[in-house]
Amino acid sequence: MLKLYYAPGSCALASHIALEEAGADYVAEVVDFANNAQQSKDYLAINPKGRVPALVTPQGVLTETPAVLVYIAQSHAAKNLAPLDDIWTFARFQSFNSYICSTVHVNFAHLTRGYRWADQQSSLDDMTAKTPQTMADAFDLIENDLLAGPWVMGDDYSIADGYLLTVTRWLYRSGVEPGRHPRVAEHFKRTSDRPAVARVLESH
Amino acid sequence: MLKLYYAPGSCALASHIALEEAGADYVAEVVDFANNAQQSKDYLAINPKGRVPALVTPQGVLTETPAVLVYIAQSHAAKNLAPLDDIWTFARFQSFNSYICSTVHVNFAHLTRGYRWADQQSSLDDMTAKTPQTMADAFDLIENDLLAGPWVMGDDYSIADGYLLTVTRWLYRSGVEPGRHPRVAEHFKRTSDRPAVARVLESH
Repeated sequence: MLKLYYAPGSCALASHIALEEAGADYVAEVVDFANNAQQSKDYLAINPKGRVPALVTPQGVLTETPAVLVYIAQSHAAKNLAPLDDIWTFARFQSFNSYICSTVHVNFAHLTRGYRWADQQSSLDDMTAKTPQTMADAFDLIENDLLAGPWVMGDDYSIADGYLLTVTRWLYRSGVEPGRHPRVAEHFKRTSDRPAVARVLESH
Repeated sequence: MLKLYYAPGSCALASHIALEEAGADYVAEVVDFANNAQQSKDYLAINPKGRVPALVTPQGVLTETPAVLVYIAQSHAAKNLAPLDDIWTFARFQSFNSYICSTVHVNFAHLTRGYRWADQQSSLDDMTAKTPQTMADAFDLIENDLLAGPWVMGDDYSIADGYLLTVTRWLYRSGVEPGRHPRVAEHFKRTSDRPAVARVLESH
């Protein structure tokens, strides 16, 4: 039995979708961000980073979305949720996930969590104001270069698709011009319509 | 033959070390950041992200350090540079690399590259001033929780060690109190002393 700690709307959505697509034996428990439960003593004992997702496995607690996604794919290999059998295709898959966590997620975090990197209110306002530009730029690259289509990796759905859906929701909260990324929008609709994804979205 | 595009002192150092440790058939070419060559038309045709590292492989161009590291390890599997054979250990390895790229690298980028996320000089100064705190906090976690010792993953050297060395150099440029992270300092010395690492450091 796996246990996923998550917060609705957070990047843990990607791991949640991966578990559901894998048909994993898991439970999901909300960490109450509204009451700052991610910084509680109990939760920090589970994940000292004070973030989600955290996946409790029989071997220990795993954090960081790209690692969690590959762990789920490898431990449910028959479900073919990642290109595990080809070094180059797996590298492209990993490169996509890494770009999402290190650039797209980080850009979006500056919309409302700029206090991680600066202290003055004027700096936080400045970061918030720039987020539509940084998110639009990142999604221009996804639209034009990274999204092979119809799925991220091409013909086959993978758990990178749930990750892209997760940050596309953030794009739509960033004030970027609607319609600027039509291929991403089609991907968002296509992924949202998957039964496993739709089930998970009910709790996000 | 592989070709690594890098800039001295950048995060491409981790990939450079991995190639050297693997005994890979490769060449390394400097991208002249001082003259903004990463934004030149020629380089953007290789890597539209305008960043390093970019690894030219027979199948295509690969970017994002965590992906490059695993690609090198998998394509030189006999060198045992990553825990490829155990799903859980590989997950921990991936989690470490993901934390470096999405948190440690990002924290350091606010020291001098805050313009990625804000426009006002006062915001950039604010980010610069906060960087010692964010880097110290991240390395507290590495010191106390993530670095198993003597190597990142425990008894066996892996290419995560070259990645940790890369960002430890940045720690030492961040104004964090020397001596705060003694286990990291020992790891830095231990890793720097490896012959392959020492050879690569000559060009960084």
